[in-house]
Amino acid sequence: MNTTPRRKFWGWGFEGQGLDEDEAQRLRERVARGFGVDELSGPPPPPIDEVPLRSPRIQPPPSLAHLCTADPYERLLHSYGRSFADAVRIFRRDFPEPPDQVAYPKTEDDVTSLLSWIDGAGAAAIPFGGGSSVCGGVEPAVGDNYRGTVSLDLAALTGVVEVDATSRAASIRAGTRGPVLEAELKSHGLTLRHFPQSFEHSTLGGWIATRSGGHFASLFTHIDDFVESLRVVTPRGTLESRRLPGSGAGPSPDRLFIGSEGILGVITQAWVRLQSVPKFRASAAALFSDFFAGSEAVRALSQAGLYPSNCRLIDAREAAVSGAADGSHALLVLGFESGDHPVEPWMARALELVADAGGEVQLPEGGDGHAGDPHRTGAAGEWRRAFLRAPYAREVLAPTGVIGDTFETAVTWDRFHDLYEGVMARMGEVIREVTGKPGHLSCRFTHVYPDGPAPYFTFQGLGTLAGALEQWREIKEEANQLVVALGGTVTHHHAVGRDHRSGYRRQRPALFADALAAAKHALDPNAILNPGVLIDPIGRPLGVTGAMKGAVSRDPESEPPRVDELGGVRQ
Amino acid sequence: MNTTPRRKFWGWGFEGQGLDEDEAQRLRERVARGFGVDELSGPPPPPIDEVPLRSPRIQPPPSLAHLCTADPYERLLHSYGRSFADAVRIFRRDFPEPPDQVAYPKTEDDVTSLLSWIDGAGAAAIPFGGGSSVCGGVEPAVGDNYRGTVSLDLAALTGVVEVDATSRAASIRAGTRGPVLEAELKSHGLTLRHFPQSFEHSTLGGWIATRSGGHFASLFTHIDDFVESLRVVTPRGTLESRRLPGSGAGPSPDRLFIGSEGILGVITQAWVRLQSVPKFRASAAALFSDFFAGSEAVRALSQAGLYPSNCRLIDAREAAVSGAADGSHALLVLGFESGDHPVEPWMARALELVADAGGEVQLPEGGDGHAGDPHRTGAAGEWRRAFLRAPYAREVLAPTGVIGDTFETAVTWDRFHDLYEGVMARMGEVIREVTGKPGHLSCRFTHVYPDGPAPYFTFQGLGTLAGALEQWREIKEEANQLVVALGGTVTHHHAVGRDHRSGYRRQRPALFADALAAAKHALDPNAILNPGVLIDPIGRPLGVTGAMKGAVSRDPESEPPRVDELGGVRQ
Repeated sequence: MNTTPRRKFWGWGFEGQGLDEDEAQRLRERVARGFGVDELSGPPPPPIDEVPLRSPRIQPPPSLAHLCTADPYERLLHSYGRSFADAVRIFRRDFPEPPDQVAYPKTEDDVTSLLSWIDGAGAAAIPFGGGSSVCGGVEPAVGDNYRGTVSLDLAALTGVVEVDATSRAASIRAGTRGPVLEAELKSHGLTLRHFPQSFEHSTLGGWIATRSGGHFASLFTHIDDFVESLRVVTPRGTLESRRLPGSGAGPSPDRLFIGSEGILGVITQAWVRLQSVPKFRASAAALFSDFFAGSEAVRALSQAGLYPSNCRLIDAREAAVSGAADGSHALLVLGFESGDHPVEPWMARALELVADAGGEVQLPEGGDGHAGDPHRTGAAGEWRRAFLRAPYAREVLAPTGVIGDTFETAVTWDRFHDLYEGVMARMGEVIREVTGKPGHLSCRFTHVYPDGPAPYFTFQGLGTLAGALEQWREIKEEANQLVVALGGTVTHHHAVGRDHRSGYRRQRPALFADALAAAKHALDPNAILNPGVLIDPIGRPLGVTGAMKGAVSRDPESEPPRVDELGGVRQ
Repeated sequence: MNTTPRRKFWGWGFEGQGLDEDEAQRLRERVARGFGVDELSGPPPPPIDEVPLRSPRIQPPPSLAHLCTADPYERLLHSYGRSFADAVRIFRRDFPEPPDQVAYPKTEDDVTSLLSWIDGAGAAAIPFGGGSSVCGGVEPAVGDNYRGTVSLDLAALTGVVEVDATSRAASIRAGTRGPVLEAELKSHGLTLRHFPQSFEHSTLGGWIATRSGGHFASLFTHIDDFVESLRVVTPRGTLESRRLPGSGAGPSPDRLFIGSEGILGVITQAWVRLQSVPKFRASAAALFSDFFAGSEAVRALSQAGLYPSNCRLIDAREAAVSGAADGSHALLVLGFESGDHPVEPWMARALELVADAGGEVQLPEGGDGHAGDPHRTGAAGEWRRAFLRAPYAREVLAPTGVIGDTFETAVTWDRFHDLYEGVMARMGEVIREVTGKPGHLSCRFTHVYPDGPAPYFTFQGLGTLAGALEQWREIKEEANQLVVALGGTVTHHHAVGRDHRSGYRRQRPALFADALAAAKHALDPNAILNPGVLIDPIGRPLGVTGAMKGAVSRDPESEPPRVDELGGVRQ
């Protein structure tokens, strides 16, 4: 059942991968200096046999036994995603609700059979792709209304099934991880080019279930746009939407399942739209006196119809931390790419807009601004390396009590200044109040739209391993409420899961939640699918469980949305 | 209650508008020649007092009487949309199911009050925008399970409410017609640029409810992409989605209502994304030896990331009929536009791709290919004029017994050849079998995607006014089945309504229909909203009613989808 190499159950990636001890020590020392303390230390990762695990409460029937395991490593691996709260609980050896069984279906029919068993057994099924959730989306914390939990790991449903090179599309199994997907498409000269930060350890099905955000900073930002059709196994049977380039026949079936986080069915396969491999690239970086000046350049770029593949504005602090700039300026990293034509005219116009907004253009080392891979050279390259290594830092810092996390949103341009200033001011206070000392907070744009940016905030505060989970919950809850109150979405591409539910409850129209719950009830009458995420299902009340259990809760239904005060949005 | 000038209840546009008698006579003569007959004639439009109308079965309560009318003209106007079947029934003086009342809410609260009354009265509510449906989407043909019907005309909910120029978005009332919408936005230097053929006589709310297809031939083809947020009044209350440039928080609420054809609620207002007014344009046309050669150029264009605003491939016959070419070649009309930058580099690369595919480029009259309004000059201009006049032809030809209609689809490129050849061959036969003589059939692409085109078929057959409705039903039913069997969608942008339901039933996953019906039941428990379109509601069985009543029916559930034989699509 294991993949080789084996995934760490306690951190990012595969066993044996990550920061080496020297790198880890340098990271701890750098962060310690940032907080003005001498050193940071914490416990090592838990050995498997040190973690107490309750006995499995359910057993598969003989016909499905070959697909299931209750091996402790597997149960630990499928107990959590990869959020900060997950890391803290892992290093605390705190695994109160592991899955009772982990199932690895080999075929779509296996998924159907497993759901039949789980439904009949009064248990819950938790679809599991790469397990990289950072919002409590894959944990089997379903309370006491189920007789057991089964983590449904789709790892064996992998590979490209069919390529339609004429239409530039492929049918791909949902459990296919990013690198496998791209490697198999490469032989056809095609690429999906959807590169979330989790790319190496997340799957196509997971991207679709969570509305993952990918490579392209503009235009095709989410996986949503690449989905041509879906196959989904529900407790009531299997459905497949039709491959169509476009349609006006009723509400889009695909859009109901995209972002459904496993509550409507298990996505088993999808046709996705592909790109030709980029042959032409241009890149540049520009410095701005401050983040708002840069944001005006980005607004102009996003409204110009140029569609840069990269358009990431990084504030001065974050640029300095990642080594991409000296901390006195905001940095804009700009790139264009095409499999069809040289992109100089696009970049030339973009740089005019940047200069008009006061940007000081930095060409990459090549000097002409129009050669090489824009993602691997110059300031952009520095930033990219830091980006891809970032998930490994969590397993080094979380055990030391450093509370480090991100939250991200999207907001219309008219509200962006207030949101940015509101978040920077209030969240700075909150981190200080909660941890007793100043923390760090920075921002970048991950994606941009004609009507607004997607700001992504990174913060650190100094807590202790013993207290960090509760402190994190206070900070997280404030962030949830704040971004929604200031007119943003509680998540632009990290999904809702458990950890964003308080903000989501405030954000989504109540009647839409009713409609979604009714749709779920039609497909999953016993509410066995991923209980605890997104919405409360009909007919099976859940206890408060999981990552945000015990959060400093404000009942979002009991107070009027603060956004009303900003005008315009009522729900 | 009337708008001034008053809309024709029996044809397109306003009273007094349309083809003049000379134009009409020339059109009849030309079509007669095409069928090899001496002349075509038919009855005049029905005077209002010649149409027998049953007495209204319900009356509004006194509090709502000022919003309602049972005036015969209003009841006639709201009895039908503007399809071929509608025209035939109008000219036959056949109005068996007029609305009992026509309501013109002046505010969103009025919509709420009207729905409360209608729900309590056991009646049905039919949301009505511009009334330009060509698929039986607005007729009050709900059978005998309702005590009456009320057409809810949103004409008084008109106008732009708020413009956010920073984010380039506007909040606009749903009853706003195209020309009013664009006129009000013009003072802000902004434009929606969504121009369906019905533009002058359709509304923003109608576009959203039906997933209307607009101006842009690529990229932002449907109104879907322009919707930033919605307000919807349902029988259970009002909901508003949040203005967001992008989000990953659960399935998109907007996408559930976009294309819902009035069955989930009455769309009353929307924030939509706008464009700056185009300042730079380029246009060209190209001739191809045949449609397939042209389609290869279009495929290359659609996959190049150039995003032409116009990319309409017109087959030889259709180009000749519209006067745009001589009938020996397929014609490609190509345009780029931008409010930000000159588009020469885009056009230059596009013309390379056209030439590579064997296209013979025809520059517009200006000679340089890069000046003027591409929509108003040269072959493109000819075609556009014919396009905008086309709806008026229906009221001239339908009474003569000429069966003239269109059907449209979208299909992946790998299936396009088979679909085109299958449709041209089989529908040619069907028209001959049904009418007893050869008809005319032509095709163009209205929109194109990287993974496939949206072919739009136009046909004519010679019937008689007395027999045309039944003949049309036979032809329409065959077209529904054929495009779906050949892998297409039953509609790319005309919506499902009543007339496409047999194809839709075959196309949409059955479990998705269950989920949609459950979502509707949560919002509209008594199924009062637009009964008869899209899907069967829960709890209120409908008689077979409306345009497709009595169609030569094949039960699509009882035979396996023929598309299986083509491989790949199962439902």
